[in-house]
Amino acid sequence: MLIVMTAAATKAQIDNTVRVVESLGFRAHVMPGATRTAIGVTGNQGAVDLSHFENLPGVAEAIRVTKPYKLITLDLRPDRTIVDLGDGARIGDGSLAMIAGPCSIENAKQAFAVAEIVKKSGAKFFRGGAFKPRTSPYSFSGLGKDALKILAEIRDQFGLKIVTEALDDANVDLVEKYADMIQIGARNMQNYTLLRRVGRSKLPVLLKRGMAATLEEWLLAAEYIMAEGNYNIVLCERGVRTFAQHTRNTLDLAAVPAVRRISHLPVIVDAAHGTGRSYMVTPLARAGVAVGADGLMVEVHCRPDEALSDGAQSLTLDEYEKMVSEVNAIHDVISRNGAL
Amino acid sequence: MLIVMTAAATKAQIDNTVRVVESLGFRAHVMPGATRTAIGVTGNQGAVDLSHFENLPGVAEAIRVTKPYKLITLDLRPDRTIVDLGDGARIGDGSLAMIAGPCSIENAKQAFAVAEIVKKSGAKFFRGGAFKPRTSPYSFSGLGKDALKILAEIRDQFGLKIVTEALDDANVDLVEKYADMIQIGARNMQNYTLLRRVGRSKLPVLLKRGMAATLEEWLLAAEYIMAEGNYNIVLCERGVRTFAQHTRNTLDLAAVPAVRRISHLPVIVDAAHGTGRSYMVTPLARAGVAVGADGLMVEVHCRPDEALSDGAQSLTLDEYEKMVSEVNAIHDVISRNGAL
Amino acid sequence: MLIVMTAAATKAQIDNTVRVVESLGFRAHVMPGATRTAIGVTGNQGAVDLSHFENLPGVAEAIRVTKPYKLITLDLRPDRTIVDLGDGARIGDGSLAMIAGPCSIENAKQAFAVAEIVKKSGAKFFRGGAFKPRTSPYSFSGLGKDALKILAEIRDQFGLKIVTEALDDANVDLVEKYADMIQIGARNMQNYTLLRRVGRSKLPVLLKRGMAATLEEWLLAAEYIMAEGNYNIVLCERGVRTFAQHTRNTLDLAAVPAVRRISHLPVIVDAAHGTGRSYMVTPLARAGVAVGADGLMVEVHCRPDEALSDGAQSLTLDEYEKMVSEVNAIHDVISRNGAL
Amino acid sequence: MLIVMTAAATKAQIDNTVRVVESLGFRAHVMPGATRTAIGVTGNQGAVDLSHFENLPGVAEAIRVTKPYKLITLDLRPDRTIVDLGDGARIGDGSLAMIAGPCSIENAKQAFAVAEIVKKSGAKFFRGGAFKPRTSPYSFSGLGKDALKILAEIRDQFGLKIVTEALDDANVDLVEKYADMIQIGARNMQNYTLLRRVGRSKLPVLLKRGMAATLEEWLLAAEYIMAEGNYNIVLCERGVRTFAQHTRNTLDLAAVPAVRRISHLPVIVDAAHGTGRSYMVTPLARAGVAVGADGLMVEVHCRPDEALSDGAQSLTLDEYEKMVSEVNAIHDVISRNGAL
Repeated sequence: MLIVMTAAATKAQIDNTVRVVESLGFRAHVMPGATRTAIGVTGNQGAVDLSHFENLPGVAEAIRVTKPYKLITLDLRPDRTIVDLGDGARIGDGSLAMIAGPCSIENAKQAFAVAEIVKKSGAKFFRGGAFKPRTSPYSFSGLGKDALKILAEIRDQFGLKIVTEALDDANVDLVEKYADMIQIGARNMQNYTLLRRVGRSKLPVLLKRGMAATLEEWLLAAEYIMAEGNYNIVLCERGVRTFAQHTRNTLDLAAVPAVRRISHLPVIVDAAHGTGRSYMVTPLARAGVAVGADGLMVEVHCRPDEALSDGAQSLTLDEYEKMVSEVNAIHDVISRNGAL
Repeated sequence: MLIVMTAAATKAQIDNTVRVVESLGFRAHVMPGATRTAIGVTGNQGAVDLSHFENLPGVAEAIRVTKPYKLITLDLRPDRTIVDLGDGARIGDGSLAMIAGPCSIENAKQAFAVAEIVKKSGAKFFRGGAFKPRTSPYSFSGLGKDALKILAEIRDQFGLKIVTEALDDANVDLVEKYADMIQIGARNMQNYTLLRRVGRSKLPVLLKRGMAATLEEWLLAAEYIMAEGNYNIVLCERGVRTFAQHTRNTLDLAAVPAVRRISHLPVIVDAAHGTGRSYMVTPLARAGVAVGADGLMVEVHCRPDEALSDGAQSLTLDEYEKMVSEVNAIHDVISRNGAL
Repeated sequence: MLIVMTAAATKAQIDNTVRVVESLGFRAHVMPGATRTAIGVTGNQGAVDLSHFENLPGVAEAIRVTKPYKLITLDLRPDRTIVDLGDGARIGDGSLAMIAGPCSIENAKQAFAVAEIVKKSGAKFFRGGAFKPRTSPYSFSGLGKDALKILAEIRDQFGLKIVTEALDDANVDLVEKYADMIQIGARNMQNYTLLRRVGRSKLPVLLKRGMAATLEEWLLAAEYIMAEGNYNIVLCERGVRTFAQHTRNTLDLAAVPAVRRISHLPVIVDAAHGTGRSYMVTPLARAGVAVGADGLMVEVHCRPDEALSDGAQSLTLDEYEKMVSEVNAIHDVISRNGAL
Repeated sequence: MLIVMTAAATKAQIDNTVRVVESLGFRAHVMPGATRTAIGVTGNQGAVDLSHFENLPGVAEAIRVTKPYKLITLDLRPDRTIVDLGDGARIGDGSLAMIAGPCSIENAKQAFAVAEIVKKSGAKFFRGGAFKPRTSPYSFSGLGKDALKILAEIRDQFGLKIVTEALDDANVDLVEKYADMIQIGARNMQNYTLLRRVGRSKLPVLLKRGMAATLEEWLLAAEYIMAEGNYNIVLCERGVRTFAQHTRNTLDLAAVPAVRRISHLPVIVDAAHGTGRSYMVTPLARAGVAVGADGLMVEVHCRPDEALSDGAQSLTLDEYEKMVSEVNAIHDVISRNGAL
């Protein structure tokens, strides 16, 4: 931590600040500057609460230096995490993981039709919502356990790994029974009860970034899960809320290299929620691969105009196949260039 | 809903769009304009999913008109809701409700010292965290049930109504046993499992606005609670996340008149989280009252520099007393002017 | 400045960083911490460019400490600036300055009708646009010099001081001839050619905050003006752009105490642009006064529904008179409490 | 335009609204709905000012439908604009235009060293600041005319087309004399005097998106230029301001397909300002090409750690050459796929 004194701070105020620092068991490094004095604070293992200092007389600002995360950092574990679901379904190993499927499971027929195309495209993961968080209490909120059963059949028939969202502890119990990977949605990124619960799960976790989450908050959400013992986490950038109105969210692709610089966890891009408009999904999926993501999540539907949720951001089966061929070609290019 | 066709849309595309509208059971009103045609859609009881239309050939845009909320609107209930906790503790009746106390309950001594001042100031509500949502898994997360017991003693001794946050179903069970009002925090504003649970509670609910929630999303979160049968809801503006760095959040005081125009629910202002800096709390609390809020939520601590959480935004006991006298004087002025 | 090394930084990398710091004429303070080393940099008079350091091997982050402003700070000038336009028209002296008038001057009749009410209300300043920055090239962009002449007549007849916006150097020449105070609009807050030009003017300057300006950028825009020799500046908070859709901009009232803490310059609040909706103007004007602003800027129009620009955020004459009485009463309260 | 009445609106209020619509020369289409009535307004050539309606009694909301732009739209001109500077330097023709060079021209030696590499890489455009808009009045603000002379020499020697920023009319006069393309920076996107001036220039214009500009505002800034007769405009996405702190700006790559859908103008991506961190420039440049941009703008410097401005976001010569080879390979892929 760095404490910056005001230009007008007296020697007594500086001395007092040093005293407070030392009384908390830290070491104070006084640095007199041209216009004001700064005091470096060392000896702290974790983050210190700034509020101990910023209201002291003569203090202009307290600046946190040490980041509060531990387990997610490259400092702790320099090798990248590979999340391995078996049967060659891996995220983070340099391949391009494709997670595709309908927004929500509406019936077996729809789900199987999409699954067939997803399998054919070479994807190893199938997504589909059983429990849907909906802004309005009057919107379709998923088929629940029935959807999970359909998903389990798809796994059996096509050998696809199933990724699906859980909204609460009871959901997690069911998802653990029927699926292969638990998704934590953007709205629940700081639902700590739920994070702790999936931290005790045997299944890997796909952790979406919250709508207004800073990089630090997102990584700390992963830290919650890891602190409970589950190290198999995949981060998913899905757009953040900004003033822009031409998309549902603003996809923040710089988050991919930013995560890479700090953490060993894999990171993928959700180009469907990240834009909210089907005509943008393919261009942004290409961009997600080009920026270096470990994978993509997209929504595919046989008849997007009849979807019960999020039809506006789903690809048709044809659009999906075209997208896969484009992103694979880009992935080849950047793999060859050693850019991953 | 309004469907806007592109300037180049053909008659066949317009006809087809009308056909889709009518096939869904709605009525289509074709309005040819100077440069393009628009189609009004009526007959829908609730919100229609835009995605049925916006990918149809020739459609430029689908604009939603009907808002998806029902129970929270003045349309449904023109009289303002008064949330009454008994013993004269009311929110929404034209008085200025004051909810004050420490961020978290750290021990009985601290809590009682603050409660004494809060009581003396004329406040009817005491706040204090038992379960704290913390960004880092390594931060102090509250005393839990022990804190609730201290809060219950404060209620008995001082006659203050207790407001405290619940993070999950298990918390709600305990809060119902020990407290008078359940707070839903910003991070949980779209935790629908939790919203439904408090919707089935007998206790009134204080619903904080999410960090990046639009007005509509916030009101729909209240709608979730009301849809389960709990009509005693108080909304709380606590700042939203923006690019601004001089505060922890940007307090959006315009939300108060905006809520008023749509909903019968009372709305209060949290000037502590809304700023994150103690020197701003009193000015923003004054502003909150002046804009017409039904009450204030503030954090008070005997020794903010020693607080285990959020000390930087807590008032000292002296500052709190000064603030109360200022906001009461402003409330008198605007009550006299009939501005509420 | 503080340079934070990575946890894995070698001694050689630390030594090299120290060498670079010293080669630039600064002093380096090495502070070994529990997990990583930080290096304090002192001896710099102004802000140092972070980029000299943040790409050096082993450097995790460079954090700027010294703020780049000088003339606007309380450090330099502890007494608050009072902008005095003569005849008792002062901003920053503890009174509540009221700047009112139509968005744009449409004709003499309209302007005089509004001026009469503004004068009667006790206001000392009249606003009215002659040159209007409009998002579309096809919108009404003001009467130009003809409007300035009308404004000058209003000054003569009513004794009101005239505040009007200038968009470029040529405008400033004219405004200097006809008006008393030059307004720099939000869109031009970083138009440095224009800032330098008004910095050489004899007229005081009303500097609106840019739509996405940080506090620091806003204060640095004032610094540009002061650096040219014009010390008579009034800052004006007018809302910033956020994701919120219930207002045109989100009025950031915390900017008022934040400016106060750093600068001696007066700061006022524009409740019209800050909301964009007439029904919110009075509540937010009250809040602006309660938060401690030195004045208000509002738009008043005889027939808002017929206004050529910004009618949706203008008060009628009656609404304006009611607002004035409410804000004066609040100003009395906080003056009595010594809160200003 | 669509006018939505409140649920409680009376027949008299609806009739009155229709009367106001018709009195302005428009046609009103009354559409009674299940809960409320909407009124479609047609017959307007351009955008109607919403404020004529939204304060009428019984009106809940007025929704603008017609967009206010004309010349920039595909409706008006279905063929994409190709900006051709001669000698094969074209933007918008399906090739990948590369605009590279130092942030600011510091001296001839530096500029020539960079230009040599830029030329060698196959780029056709050289960028370099002569007039730098700087947040602080005390920062280096460019060499001015001396820089322009150096740029002109580079043009002569290397055959590169020169792109450089102008901050005001006097700058434009000089840039017209020495350079090939005028850049309008983000801070000046709504400096209408400057937009009109470059609208009367013979040189093509590179128009950067403002820091908080919506898509519509950006396109309207281009409309200002076109309305004066200059049709050679290239749009440049350079990141917008959001709450995110891991980058200087949040690069909004979805703006590329969004612009494409509405306008015939070419659009490029500035990956340097869009991130502000050199380690992110190459990944985001790759993403910009993959999303379908017509070109890239990047900053290159021989010694970024010694740059007088923006060193933190500049590539070294080696990094630049590597980036060029990666983005060309991606451009080949998407050209082959017909994705442009």
